[in-house]
Amino acid sequence: MGYLEEPLKHYTDMLASGAPAPGGGSAAALVGALGAALNNMVANFTVGREKFAAVEADVQRLLARSEELRAALERLTQADTEAYGAVAAAQKMPRETEGQKAARTAAVQAALKAAEEVPREAVRAAYAVLEVAAELVGKGNPNLITDVGVAAKFGVAALECAALNVEINLAYIKDEAYNKAVRQEMAPMLEKGPGLGAEIWAKVIDKVRG
Amino acid sequence: MGYLEEPLKHYTDMLASGAPAPGGGSAAALVGALGAALNNMVANFTVGREKFAAVEADVQRLLARSEELRAALERLTQADTEAYGAVAAAQKMPRETEGQKAARTAAVQAALKAAEEVPREAVRAAYAVLEVAAELVGKGNPNLITDVGVAAKFGVAALECAALNVEINLAYIKDEAYNKAVRQEMAPMLEKGPGLGAEIWAKVIDKVRG
Repeated sequence: MGYLEEPLKHYTDMLASGAPAPGGGSAAALVGALGAALNNMVANFTVGREKFAAVEADVQRLLARSEELRAALERLTQADTEAYGAVAAAQKMPRETEGQKAARTAAVQAALKAAEEVPREAVRAAYAVLEVAAELVGKGNPNLITDVGVAAKFGVAALECAALNVEINLAYIKDEAYNKAVRQEMAPMLEKGPGLGAEIWAKVIDKVRG
Repeated sequence: MGYLEEPLKHYTDMLASGAPAPGGGSAAALVGALGAALNNMVANFTVGREKFAAVEADVQRLLARSEELRAALERLTQADTEAYGAVAAAQKMPRETEGQKAARTAAVQAALKAAEEVPREAVRAAYAVLEVAAELVGKGNPNLITDVGVAAKFGVAALECAALNVEINLAYIKDEAYNKAVRQEMAPMLEKGPGLGAEIWAKVIDKVRG
């Protein structure tokens, strides 16, 4: 059983509590999943309607894509709560002898690398949520235009918060080449994502103001 | 039974579905609740520790405040899914005679006003989440600095998305004096909120980069 199968209130209670997990990394993935779900909702109110027949194939593709992203981000919401455990376990390894110290350091470093992969995957998925919203703002049912706007804001928040959770892991990873490669992968998404979100938002505001 | 008592996966499934509720307004309140919960987590890792004795009273106050805000935003997550029902019911009233048309219009307008109060309350609570995060960034346990950053991003996203959901209601409300008063109430929060969020975020980034 994971958090997705338990009451929503249990998740928020645990997030608020003095337990180390779930924390901001898991919550960032969840906000990405909520953004993906809103894209889905917009697509569901668009497909199969004669009025939007011209974009049917595109919106069917966006529907499938956002379902995929939602599933990934829901999985990461749970995975982030588990990644912390491996780091904590490695930190508890004995460090009395030099050999133990070396083994512990290697285990902590490996666990940190595995842990940062979870929010990094959320960064990619959150960016993809923004790409879907960028298409839906023009092609989706205009009655749901505010939901596309909310999806865009959630996508940006998830992107930046997941990246922050990658960064805090990198602060403890001693492998500079590894850290550089991770930052290089994220850089274009962090550079373009907020602007993409702002463009979508501006189009939404235009339509809301009529 | 409401969404808070049902599995988290049920909420995201319903958000993604072709059902009219929950939608972006409810999800905005939920993201605000997640931000409040993260403030809470930070406060829970700060109170009662000798190291942070100097700020104990302040953080106790912030803990109580963010619990209050989380409860309010969780309530609004559910309330927003119900507000839509009253508008839809009013829209289904008969409109054959002039008298029926007038009664229907009055009922729809009243329901729209009641419906916009839900996201407007979320706007206030989300702004308050930012105020709490602004204090915690300096007073909270620095080991949880990224969680304050995430709370700030969620607070801004919740604020702007809840306000968008107020605006889309106002677009259908014919009472210009009412709309003006609503916009006047929100304006200072929408003006200051994103800047406050950006200030908190900048402090978090500074600390993460050491």
